[in-house]
Amino acid sequence: MNSDIDIAYGSQMKPISEIAKDLLLTEQDWEPYGHYKAKLSQQILDKLADEPNGKIILTTSINPTPAGEGKSTVTVGLGQALNQLNKKAVIALREPSLGPTMGVKGGAAGGGYSQVLPMEDINLHFTGDLHAITTANNALSAFIDNHIHQGNELHIDPRRVEWKRVLDLNDRSLREVVVGLGGASKGVPRQDGFNITVASEMMAILCLANDLQDLKERLSRIFIGYTYERDPVTVKQLGFEGSLTLLLKNAMKPNLVQTIENTPAIIHGGPFANIAHGCNSLVATKTAAKLGDFVVTEAGFGADLGAEKFLNIKTRAGGFEPDTVVIVATIRALKMHGGLNKNQLHEESVDALERGISNLKKHMETIVQFNLPFVIAINQFPLDTEKELKFLTNWCASQGAEVSIVEVFAKGGKGGIDLAKKVIKSCATKTGYMKYTYELENSIEEKIVKIATNVYGAGRVEFTSTAKKQLMLLNKHGHDQLPICMAKTQYSLSDDPTLIGRPHGFTITVRQLTASVGAEFIVALTGDVMTMPGLPKKPAALNMDVKEDGRITGLF
Amino acid sequence: MNSDIDIAYGSQMKPISEIAKDLLLTEQDWEPYGHYKAKLSQQILDKLADEPNGKIILTTSINPTPAGEGKSTVTVGLGQALNQLNKKAVIALREPSLGPTMGVKGGAAGGGYSQVLPMEDINLHFTGDLHAITTANNALSAFIDNHIHQGNELHIDPRRVEWKRVLDLNDRSLREVVVGLGGASKGVPRQDGFNITVASEMMAILCLANDLQDLKERLSRIFIGYTYERDPVTVKQLGFEGSLTLLLKNAMKPNLVQTIENTPAIIHGGPFANIAHGCNSLVATKTAAKLGDFVVTEAGFGADLGAEKFLNIKTRAGGFEPDTVVIVATIRALKMHGGLNKNQLHEESVDALERGISNLKKHMETIVQFNLPFVIAINQFPLDTEKELKFLTNWCASQGAEVSIVEVFAKGGKGGIDLAKKVIKSCATKTGYMKYTYELENSIEEKIVKIATNVYGAGRVEFTSTAKKQLMLLNKHGHDQLPICMAKTQYSLSDDPTLIGRPHGFTITVRQLTASVGAEFIVALTGDVMTMPGLPKKPAALNMDVKEDGRITGLF
Repeated sequence: MNSDIDIAYGSQMKPISEIAKDLLLTEQDWEPYGHYKAKLSQQILDKLADEPNGKIILTTSINPTPAGEGKSTVTVGLGQALNQLNKKAVIALREPSLGPTMGVKGGAAGGGYSQVLPMEDINLHFTGDLHAITTANNALSAFIDNHIHQGNELHIDPRRVEWKRVLDLNDRSLREVVVGLGGASKGVPRQDGFNITVASEMMAILCLANDLQDLKERLSRIFIGYTYERDPVTVKQLGFEGSLTLLLKNAMKPNLVQTIENTPAIIHGGPFANIAHGCNSLVATKTAAKLGDFVVTEAGFGADLGAEKFLNIKTRAGGFEPDTVVIVATIRALKMHGGLNKNQLHEESVDALERGISNLKKHMETIVQFNLPFVIAINQFPLDTEKELKFLTNWCASQGAEVSIVEVFAKGGKGGIDLAKKVIKSCATKTGYMKYTYELENSIEEKIVKIATNVYGAGRVEFTSTAKKQLMLLNKHGHDQLPICMAKTQYSLSDDPTLIGRPHGFTITVRQLTASVGAEFIVALTGDVMTMPGLPKKPAALNMDVKEDGRITGLF
Repeated sequence: MNSDIDIAYGSQMKPISEIAKDLLLTEQDWEPYGHYKAKLSQQILDKLADEPNGKIILTTSINPTPAGEGKSTVTVGLGQALNQLNKKAVIALREPSLGPTMGVKGGAAGGGYSQVLPMEDINLHFTGDLHAITTANNALSAFIDNHIHQGNELHIDPRRVEWKRVLDLNDRSLREVVVGLGGASKGVPRQDGFNITVASEMMAILCLANDLQDLKERLSRIFIGYTYERDPVTVKQLGFEGSLTLLLKNAMKPNLVQTIENTPAIIHGGPFANIAHGCNSLVATKTAAKLGDFVVTEAGFGADLGAEKFLNIKTRAGGFEPDTVVIVATIRALKMHGGLNKNQLHEESVDALERGISNLKKHMETIVQFNLPFVIAINQFPLDTEKELKFLTNWCASQGAEVSIVEVFAKGGKGGIDLAKKVIKSCATKTGYMKYTYELENSIEEKIVKIATNVYGAGRVEFTSTAKKQLMLLNKHGHDQLPICMAKTQYSLSDDPTLIGRPHGFTITVRQLTASVGAEFIVALTGDVMTMPGLPKKPAALNMDVKEDGRITGLF
């Protein structure tokens, strides 16, 4: 099989003007960024405000394993399949982060014959949105440190600045730093740290803002830390909400590209789902829903992370709900959840599959809790045996669940036709409104306990003494009505990455609580999860090159 | 008078496709970035290799003062004036850095009726080149720290890593930092610092590379620090030259925009001239010379900084030389060099002017040393008196120098017609080859002494003990044949910003010498110059805003 980049080079893209024309966009609605990318104007939403919305299909998965589930690939393939059935489908995805691209993944734009293109641009700097977010975030840090250095009129306590710097890279050495060293001309020394851009509140704000004015208001409300008197300090007090809005003005516009089969795809915003809220931007999803009869969108990692936050945070901010959910699983990953290691995956093992299926079952139950219909998509791999596939489909049938075996990696949309038909049917079965996991009026603890017990299946929740102190402050400052953005390992339903399958009776430990007042959620850090990843010993970047003819290798 | 942004909004841009068409570019030669910006393909240079080059006009100035000289404005106005005379002119400028834009300047794209457009895009993220450079630079830092953390096979001494991180912001708190704190999972602690992106070797490499393969070779040669055994370590040993080239692939393409009078302008690369080599990219200048009969290009700050490095570094890397030089001066700035302070500038003072003219005289002598013709452009301001203007023009005539009073800020190209005519004539007066200030075969000390005495007018050069040690290492590792990139205050011919006018007999203190092996020069830090600026008490960003209709305010 060819590599993703070879398949990408071998495919025929349409000029982005044609993709835009097929969506009935006028010249005022979009701007080209090269011949195959475009930025969409926010006036599209104003213009089409009274038009009906397309059906929204949310793709999620079981807890990921090193075997890979191919959720993005299934999302792209499903969009292509819907188009092959002559349904007007638009795909809505997140922008990849350079951290994992350079680190472990080497690219994140689907795979095989279900990719978004131009994959090399999407995987690298794309239209610069993440860089704009990095810049706005770090400009605010510079403004804060400058304020402290130049007289500190607001009495900001340098020990209590909570706003961190960011880079869109995996760089463990920046997790904890001391800045402002070197004497009086070099600022005020204080402890600081860098998050990866995709874990930042700035990213979340861009993704959850409804328009430019909402963006500015959210930016002005950002809580950056405390004064010596322990009063919270906001961006509005510093006076930089206008310049930060300016820095994010173009990044607020969703990006239009296409798949390998010329299905339109809107790629915009890129929060991670383990350490952030994990969904593409609200503006992108809303725009896609105006332009397509079906929107296929993805939330990161398993249903415990991305989908939970999509449903409890993003749908609240946007005032919509999905029509159905696709849960992606693979035989390989389920066998790993059943206890096999990576070297044993080539062996047929219905036993391991049967044990691992418990992970899938929990995520199915979670979607039912939300009162949403779902279809299970089994992303077929070459070594899956007939016996294993049959066992899994029979099991799904025994649970009364719709299931489809997809081959979108090898066959593109054609490999997802059956899934597409079942998804269309599933949208029609939705009855009544979606149910949230918690009410905003619940206390912060209650909300966290409900997520942990109902979505993760935890026995109990423990708050560290630090988290308890922070809880008091959050209540004191009136942030108790916000939804919760859990930061948790993606590898387990619990906060311990080694607990695979469906663990029971475990404890979720909340070690830190911070208010993202601009993004409008409380971030709860659990277990050992870190908001700045590290690089592996041999980063994916080692394989990357640009040949003399300009061709790229090593992005896959 | 309207603000720059108001004038910009009031002007009529042509679609960039028309500007490209006027330059006889085909569709394969360029890619749109929005409707008014384009990236130019490197194939233009291949295609036009055998075509003659246009005349190259280098704009420089006296030492800047808080009164401002308007060098970019004159550069743009001169290009417009040449076009009004039906000469095919292309302007070649640097990309503004967000550091000064957010900090002190609020924009850097010319001014009044001599601006490049769209000024708000050019002043903000533009086409993302600076962000790509920031990312490549910091990816390398992450790769270095990861290598040390993961076993340190190359024996890199964490105390002797010379490669620094960067951000394209003014942020004094990042000048000296400690990274890798927080325990074993958070890297190896070491001292580090951030430069502003535009002072980085990564920026210089992009600006001096002839093509993508030259870029990769330069990247592979970057010297990042020493091993415990004091052997130098390069990027090639780490193996990341391919991925860094990939990150810079699109940033290597020059950007095409237009002026307020639709004169084509290529804006690419943005090294500062006080702490870097201060010229736009080689690829941009070469492309402009193939597309225009006249190229008007600018080197940063006074002739002691940008022009010296343009002539001794950039022309060597590119194998070309300018045909004439324009030296920009203002009555106001010359009066400040004559001892007036900012509040006294409204007073007529031929005395102060006469004293301050010594600064202009030194820069004229410098250009003569290079064996280049020049024209003096007096950028007229509203409060300049007839007596002052007359004194200055008479003085120029007494020196046998061509001089022209320009009003390009208020009148656009029309205000620079006389200058344009004199510049065209001046190009024809060039005789013989340009003379460099030093030969590459000179020792590092000799080269620095020649720059200091001949270009700055210094009495002597002192090397600190640190600099002396570094000198020994540079010689030992065979870097003594490289040209010199001086880092010096822009405000004085000396390394003391308070010595205005034309100081004599001063000492230049070299306190640090580092090899930029990829960029192919030695950086010599003099005086107190810093490679990461700070923000003023009230940053320009405080005035910036985006109004409800999407209009920008506060960029001027």
